[in-house]
Amino acid sequence: MLTALDLIGTAAFAASGASIGVYKRLDLFGVCVVGITTGIGGGIVRDLLLGVTPPVSMDRWQNITVALVFSLAVFVFHPAVDRIKGAVLVLDALGMGVFATTGASTALVLGANWWAAVIIGATTAIGGGVLRDVLVNEMPLVLRRDLYATPALVGAGLVVGAHAIGLPFPWGLVIGTVTATTLRLLALARGWNLPTAPHWPERAD
Amino acid sequence: MLTALDLIGTAAFAASGASIGVYKRLDLFGVCVVGITTGIGGGIVRDLLLGVTPPVSMDRWQNITVALVFSLAVFVFHPAVDRIKGAVLVLDALGMGVFATTGASTALVLGANWWAAVIIGATTAIGGGVLRDVLVNEMPLVLRRDLYATPALVGAGLVVGAHAIGLPFPWGLVIGTVTATTLRLLALARGWNLPTAPHWPERAD
Amino acid sequence: MLTALDLIGTAAFAASGASIGVYKRLDLFGVCVVGITTGIGGGIVRDLLLGVTPPVSMDRWQNITVALVFSLAVFVFHPAVDRIKGAVLVLDALGMGVFATTGASTALVLGANWWAAVIIGATTAIGGGVLRDVLVNEMPLVLRRDLYATPALVGAGLVVGAHAIGLPFPWGLVIGTVTATTLRLLALARGWNLPTAPHWPERAD
Repeated sequence: MLTALDLIGTAAFAASGASIGVYKRLDLFGVCVVGITTGIGGGIVRDLLLGVTPPVSMDRWQNITVALVFSLAVFVFHPAVDRIKGAVLVLDALGMGVFATTGASTALVLGANWWAAVIIGATTAIGGGVLRDVLVNEMPLVLRRDLYATPALVGAGLVVGAHAIGLPFPWGLVIGTVTATTLRLLALARGWNLPTAPHWPERAD
Repeated sequence: MLTALDLIGTAAFAASGASIGVYKRLDLFGVCVVGITTGIGGGIVRDLLLGVTPPVSMDRWQNITVALVFSLAVFVFHPAVDRIKGAVLVLDALGMGVFATTGASTALVLGANWWAAVIIGATTAIGGGVLRDVLVNEMPLVLRRDLYATPALVGAGLVVGAHAIGLPFPWGLVIGTVTATTLRLLALARGWNLPTAPHWPERAD
Repeated sequence: MLTALDLIGTAAFAASGASIGVYKRLDLFGVCVVGITTGIGGGIVRDLLLGVTPPVSMDRWQNITVALVFSLAVFVFHPAVDRIKGAVLVLDALGMGVFATTGASTALVLGANWWAAVIIGATTAIGGGVLRDVLVNEMPLVLRRDLYATPALVGAGLVVGAHAIGLPFPWGLVIGTVTATTLRLLALARGWNLPTAPHWPERAD
């Protein structure tokens, strides 16, 4: 189940990365590189932070293959993808939830303390999207709009909390993933945002 | 003392990152992410280069907490921060000096040779600022203006030199930090810059 | 021979990075930082993915020294470099080929499976250029124009294939490097490109 969820998250993130690549008019290879980077980037960052080398999502052919297939699908069928944008956002929210909880869980298994596990879980969930936006030369979306990182922190925190009170392994994953995904979808549906600092003059330079 | 200096550097870097986040009109979370990344980014890069996983500044709650508190303070009190910009620059120079010397020192302790220790020390001092500028989609400041990396190289070099001639441990740190910070402040005060290449035609594309 | 080729690749990549730094009107230090990052960046990414710390190209003084010398040379002689742009492109293609094959070979030696070796080889070949473009705030060239990554994948794949059928060590390197470099030069000479997705409306935001 964990692997299946992981691949769903990879697929959703790859589709979101490939969509932005198409918007940016990248060629076939560029679209695939951005798609694959978005799909497996969070996992690579997680594994580098935890000292797992080579990173699992490079070492297993499944992750890159799934990311590649979904990138190609977006390249070919992008007008259809545009129509099902809602579905992509839902999958993206699910992917975020999955990566937050599996990231935190992997960190705990590898001996990280609870604090590091929460931070690394959230970083796993956000990392792929940040790499995507840096590659296409945009300020990362996570810095600008919508509640995105807060649900990731909550999901990772629930995994660590479940571990602390001794819940059996998969419960923390399930509760954390469902909560993070639901929070994210609620934030999207209701347009929840955090405030910006008021009354700051425009940058002079 | 070392930990205290490390946290001062983290705080100063976090404040500089959060200030830029406010200028860029990021929301509360974005300001905190940029602030925290700037504050602990150099240490994370250092630890990844040295194979210390999870990175110390993610593993210890103190570093992120200090970075978060100073990011929040900038978010709330940014007009006041604008008035004490001079103090932030001094703290930033101190942080740069601290990170250059502690980075080089950590590298030596973990068995890096003298050359790698100098390079890794300077990278630690510069890394947080580069991550900050990449995140907010600006060309890194260190590439464009002011002497910044040169003092970092000097500070890291003094630590390695003190180690080579057998000075007791803290002396290299003190001498390196004071020298790097002073050089940086002098460069700021006097507007020292390195030359740019002359007579190069504007880029055609 | 391997080390010599590695340094040639480093030099060519450093020259390409420094050229872009000069175009961007960076100061002396900025040009050197971009040049050195481009020259040794691919190797650093490779070593981090494989858990080799500190990264070899930071640990050995030769790599950074070669990168620094070629960056300085570009800074001083850039009009001449402009005239021999063809030579730089040839060297860059050679560097790409060398890094793709040595990256894949290093990965195999360190126990990565064939799939990870191909991916890590191509990442080594592309990494320096991506870091260069991110630093100077451009969308990475590899995403936009020309066949670049495909030859890198082919070169890395040939190393892995030669290893699989038991060819003696250097043959895979030679065949892979020559093939990747030739493919890249052919792509440049004939203007080969991959298609972009058709009929996509301009981005609305």
